[in-house]
Amino acid sequence: MRLTSAQANALVKAAKSKADEIGVAASVVVLDFAGHLKAFSRIDGAWLGSVDVAMRKARTSVLFEMETESVLDNCRPDAQAHGLEQTNGGLVIFAGGVPLKGSDGSLRGAIGVSGGVVAQNFAIAQAGALALHE
Amino acid sequence: MRLTSAQANALVKAAKSKADEIGVAASVVVLDFAGHLKAFSRIDGAWLGSVDVAMRKARTSVLFEMETESVLDNCRPDAQAHGLEQTNGGLVIFAGGVPLKGSDGSLRGAIGVSGGVVAQNFAIAQAGALALHE
Amino acid sequence: MRLTSAQANALVKAAKSKADEIGVAASVVVLDFAGHLKAFSRIDGAWLGSVDVAMRKARTSVLFEMETESVLDNCRPDAQAHGLEQTNGGLVIFAGGVPLKGSDGSLRGAIGVSGGVVAQNFAIAQAGALALHE
Amino acid sequence: MRLTSAQANALVKAAKSKADEIGVAASVVVLDFAGHLKAFSRIDGAWLGSVDVAMRKARTSVLFEMETESVLDNCRPDAQAHGLEQTNGGLVIFAGGVPLKGSDGSLRGAIGVSGGVVAQNFAIAQAGALALHE
Repeated sequence: MRLTSAQANALVKAAKSKADEIGVAASVVVLDFAGHLKAFSRIDGAWLGSVDVAMRKARTSVLFEMETESVLDNCRPDAQAHGLEQTNGGLVIFAGGVPLKGSDGSLRGAIGVSGGVVAQNFAIAQAGALALHE
Repeated sequence: MRLTSAQANALVKAAKSKADEIGVAASVVVLDFAGHLKAFSRIDGAWLGSVDVAMRKARTSVLFEMETESVLDNCRPDAQAHGLEQTNGGLVIFAGGVPLKGSDGSLRGAIGVSGGVVAQNFAIAQAGALALHE
Repeated sequence: MRLTSAQANALVKAAKSKADEIGVAASVVVLDFAGHLKAFSRIDGAWLGSVDVAMRKARTSVLFEMETESVLDNCRPDAQAHGLEQTNGGLVIFAGGVPLKGSDGSLRGAIGVSGGVVAQNFAIAQAGALALHE
Repeated sequence: MRLTSAQANALVKAAKSKADEIGVAASVVVLDFAGHLKAFSRIDGAWLGSVDVAMRKARTSVLFEMETESVLDNCRPDAQAHGLEQTNGGLVIFAGGVPLKGSDGSLRGAIGVSGGVVAQNFAIAQAGALALHE
């Protein structure tokens, strides 16, 4: 099943709620399962640089169907796919990108968050992702 | 004054309402006055190609502080700036990009819409732009 | 002889004086004879889109050692080099780019201006170019 | 408040004074707070490669509202945002980019300098930045 526009907006809203709660000005991106932009919001005060970082995080999670931080494990100098982060126009491999999976486990899209420290970005992305199943 | 995240979301919402009303599946982009992404939503069923077109329309309206269709008037073969559309990474010069002006006339940002025929896109963008002053 | 930094600044200053005199908010670019940026100034209120257009005008004048408008004559559908404007990363072929020639006729660089209508841009660029020989 | 053209020129002038004083041929870039070019000067003898480096330094400081060297701290292999330098079209994360902050702490733009060794570039950028408050 495809991610609907209403769902994408609900994800952004849930992520922004979490961001407000922890006091982070972030950019929040939702992509569909093919990596195309579905919804976006930049909270007032977020770094301009957060737009591209959030986009790339979500894109990385779509492309490899995993959290961005898990992609990092494969990219380390001694890991099996060192340099993978240079492919696909440039991945972002630190926390903040989370794949969206349906109840059947299939990829529905991804959410990407940038603006805080990585633990905050991950918490915000996860709060957004949870809204998919509400 | 800067365009707030709340205002950007209100613009997208108003534009989507208009799109629903006239039965068009569109992408709606809101940029700040310097051309950075502030809010975005792609309605279910909109062409994937509409994302980039809507982005470029809004960007064109920021860069030249006018509706995209007015930029076209300067780009025609016999007009003074033929080929202008090739600058700035590629402009879009048909209707659907509308600058957002504050009550003092200063540029606040722009809205870009793609997905329907140009008259529809323009109507949707204008409906969004009107929400700035509500 | 190479264009010095002092000369490039004098050209920008002369161009800005002319722009102020005729009431145009413009971007002014000076490139050296090899097309590398030497000096730049964006007058308050100039369209953001003018930065890239002024750059491309100056670059076009360096690449073909002529005024941008003269390049246009070669690019018309019935002219000998139709499509030339697509080369070199995209030329700008309406007035506002002027080559800078030394007293021996050799290329020293170029000045590019964008922000007004083309006749204004040309007048501003020419005022800048004249400052080379003062 | 926006950075004016007069302020941008004063910054470049102050930076160039410092560069002359310490005998460095540098490129000096001033961007507005949204990353658009406001003023530029390349001192005679500066490497051609310094133009792009100075531009990217200033852009990096706008995008993340900090000195370029501080961005580096987040990009190291063991830091939280390893690979961040690959985003936003390519950041530069060694010294020479300095954000310009108003007296209220808000971002006004950034200055970027390249041409000398990093300590020199930083000193030149800082000398320029100080001119904002004169």
